[in-house]
Amino acid sequence: MAHEAAIAALSAAFGDQCVTTDAVRDHHARGEAHHTPVRPDAVVFVTSTEEVAKAMQICSAHGCPIVPFGVGTSMEGHVVPLRGGVSLDLSKMDKILSVHPEDLDVVVQPGVTRRRLNEELRDTGLFFPVDPGADASIGGMTATRASGTNAVRYGTMRECVLALEVVLADGRVIRTGTRARKSSAGYDLTKLMIGSEGTLGIITEITLRLFGQPEAVSSGVCTFDSIEGAVDAVIMTIQSGLPVARIEFLDELQVRAVAAYSKLDLAEKPTLFLEFHGTDAGVAEQSERFGEIAAEFGGGAFEWATKTEDRNRLWRARHDAYYACRALRPGSQGYITDACVPISRLAEAILETKKDIADSGMIAPIVGHVGDGNFHLAIMIDPEDAGELKAAEALAHRIAERALEMGGTVTGEHGVGLGKMKYMEAEHGDGYSVMADIKRALDPQNLLNPGKVVQIN
Amino acid sequence: MAHEAAIAALSAAFGDQCVTTDAVRDHHARGEAHHTPVRPDAVVFVTSTEEVAKAMQICSAHGCPIVPFGVGTSMEGHVVPLRGGVSLDLSKMDKILSVHPEDLDVVVQPGVTRRRLNEELRDTGLFFPVDPGADASIGGMTATRASGTNAVRYGTMRECVLALEVVLADGRVIRTGTRARKSSAGYDLTKLMIGSEGTLGIITEITLRLFGQPEAVSSGVCTFDSIEGAVDAVIMTIQSGLPVARIEFLDELQVRAVAAYSKLDLAEKPTLFLEFHGTDAGVAEQSERFGEIAAEFGGGAFEWATKTEDRNRLWRARHDAYYACRALRPGSQGYITDACVPISRLAEAILETKKDIADSGMIAPIVGHVGDGNFHLAIMIDPEDAGELKAAEALAHRIAERALEMGGTVTGEHGVGLGKMKYMEAEHGDGYSVMADIKRALDPQNLLNPGKVVQIN
Repeated sequence: MAHEAAIAALSAAFGDQCVTTDAVRDHHARGEAHHTPVRPDAVVFVTSTEEVAKAMQICSAHGCPIVPFGVGTSMEGHVVPLRGGVSLDLSKMDKILSVHPEDLDVVVQPGVTRRRLNEELRDTGLFFPVDPGADASIGGMTATRASGTNAVRYGTMRECVLALEVVLADGRVIRTGTRARKSSAGYDLTKLMIGSEGTLGIITEITLRLFGQPEAVSSGVCTFDSIEGAVDAVIMTIQSGLPVARIEFLDELQVRAVAAYSKLDLAEKPTLFLEFHGTDAGVAEQSERFGEIAAEFGGGAFEWATKTEDRNRLWRARHDAYYACRALRPGSQGYITDACVPISRLAEAILETKKDIADSGMIAPIVGHVGDGNFHLAIMIDPEDAGELKAAEALAHRIAERALEMGGTVTGEHGVGLGKMKYMEAEHGDGYSVMADIKRALDPQNLLNPGKVVQIN
Repeated sequence: MAHEAAIAALSAAFGDQCVTTDAVRDHHARGEAHHTPVRPDAVVFVTSTEEVAKAMQICSAHGCPIVPFGVGTSMEGHVVPLRGGVSLDLSKMDKILSVHPEDLDVVVQPGVTRRRLNEELRDTGLFFPVDPGADASIGGMTATRASGTNAVRYGTMRECVLALEVVLADGRVIRTGTRARKSSAGYDLTKLMIGSEGTLGIITEITLRLFGQPEAVSSGVCTFDSIEGAVDAVIMTIQSGLPVARIEFLDELQVRAVAAYSKLDLAEKPTLFLEFHGTDAGVAEQSERFGEIAAEFGGGAFEWATKTEDRNRLWRARHDAYYACRALRPGSQGYITDACVPISRLAEAILETKKDIADSGMIAPIVGHVGDGNFHLAIMIDPEDAGELKAAEALAHRIAERALEMGGTVTGEHGVGLGKMKYMEAEHGDGYSVMADIKRALDPQNLLNPGKVVQIN
């Protein structure tokens, strides 16, 4: 066993909370995506900030890598312990520490999942909007700068995290930010930690912005004759400042998958799923305006889901899009892409991608948070077939390169992890070396999730 | 002359653009606030990123400090070259490089001022919302993480800057961020540079978010019988999710000053200046809702300024509040405070502050961007009177300490500069040492605006 002394020290300190069984190590060897699993040498289940600091100190003293693990929904292999060592499981740190309805914020531990948070908030009249689909942990969402369907209206984790508690590589505990809405007091360490993927520190507490539950909500579906029409309608919607809460694109293949899997009656055409939040009058006005825009771009009638249960069914179907894709080809696994481009380039990006998919001969439905210029392919491959994996990589590569050519990013919301490391230099140029400088300054031994975001040795 | 070799090299490289006359050095010795001026040894007027990089390289080779200077509206002494050296004047880098109406963004040089930007944008139907009152440069606003009257709706520079070009301490030029709306590609260097006050790099290009000019705008004034009433109305407005565009508090003394200076007919009572943005129907609905809230908290009738010229007069008066304060006591200068607290503590913070002002016997009107929990005192002192300066410092100190006790920040929007250095350890704890680690990593010689934000030698 590697890191023997560290694991022995952790065992002594943590007793039963330090686990080395194969089953538990296997569970912590991977996230949800296709990346090759690597087993940690041990998994330490922590229950408090003090325990995180203690584990960190032991790892630091022994030069043992430590990789935070939430609920394992990562799409880019963030949680894979590339160099072995410890997988630090934070899922038991799942307390909602304090709700401040009067300040529209909440303080949570990192293991709280977003669905549970919203269940607990229901009676306060408030909600936490960021919604990546999966029932991810808030810690993981913070560490990967996650977003999702309603970022177009409420922002991403970048905008919705106010303050953090973080355990540093040397075991010190810092607090970044305050509960004040804004501050000009020095470097923005909160934003530096958001999206740092466990490479600069371990997040042990998160203060989140909350929003009032909208008085009125309307959701609906609008089909288009062409992809251009659908995407141009989105672009016009955003440009006209319509405060749409969700605007999701599904190409015809994704619609077919979703309709079959979720038993919805949908025409197999490029489609937008939409949602409006506001007052009764505001929602009515927004819907009407969107209807006018859609008509201008060849959109069909806007089909409403006004009842809560119909709305939930619609968004459940959207969230199950990945499972729907897998059902298109039983036994397959998705290789997921995550390009995000300036919205003016979105139609072009998607159309060229459609050509690439056709050329590749692969099954790859498209779904997108198009209001932000972000879209995903689920390239459905046989995970045992090396040729298919290679072909998927080639297709994903073309999409990433095009995003960069268009002034966009290779990852809109899934993070760097393992999958996007190879594009960081191209995306950031000399800025990438600044990231390395920061990593070296905060984690000189390179113990915090080594090999992710930026290589320093 | 100190830094003789550096200045000689800069003179050789920059010719007439490198100025050492007393008048120009004096102009670059201070911002707008009370901090003791320090002359730079030379002022270098740059016109391009290449020139900034060249100046930086020369300073780096000679170990000469370099302090960026925009238009000098800093409130916290940011531009004071504490250790002499070079004041780098970026005001001639004032090009609007590209407007992308279809993506709602614009790329500008740092010397562009916010008023000119909005004048140039007028015909596009778009505007840049961040409005600190003064006609500051966009570079300075970025470097200090500025905000202002309508941050409550549109966010601060933290939210409104998408991407940057930055010259590093070694003269390398990096680009941070992209024009995509969101990204999860590694550490957020854009946010790290926003608010870094010229201590981590020199900002040479800024990509800003734009917003559609609202179809309808309504502004108005509402007076209250008590400060509690006014502030509680604000708190309720924010908590109810009303998307107010501006909500500014003025205490009765500030109202007296503004009424006299700007010749407005205002009752000498705690007052809110408000603005709503939206569609005609949306604005009407918002105003009505606010009226209901105000009535609940003892607010008087809401007086409208529906004509553009009346609206402009109202906000002009708000922006001239500082000059109005000076007119209260001719010959005086303002010592400005900048606390920001969680909104639930705002009424308490302001009421206790009122007691402190009364105890101090000083003239100190209060004005606040209260929707964000941020409020300012202008403590009007005789700048020649050391006793008054000391008394102002004591009053400002009580306000800063209280902000920290209440879980807030000592600076909501003016930045650290010279004035807030002494509170950084108290506000950030061990996090302050992380800021020092970052400063050391990016500016090991401590040449970039040394002595600001964080001390490293």
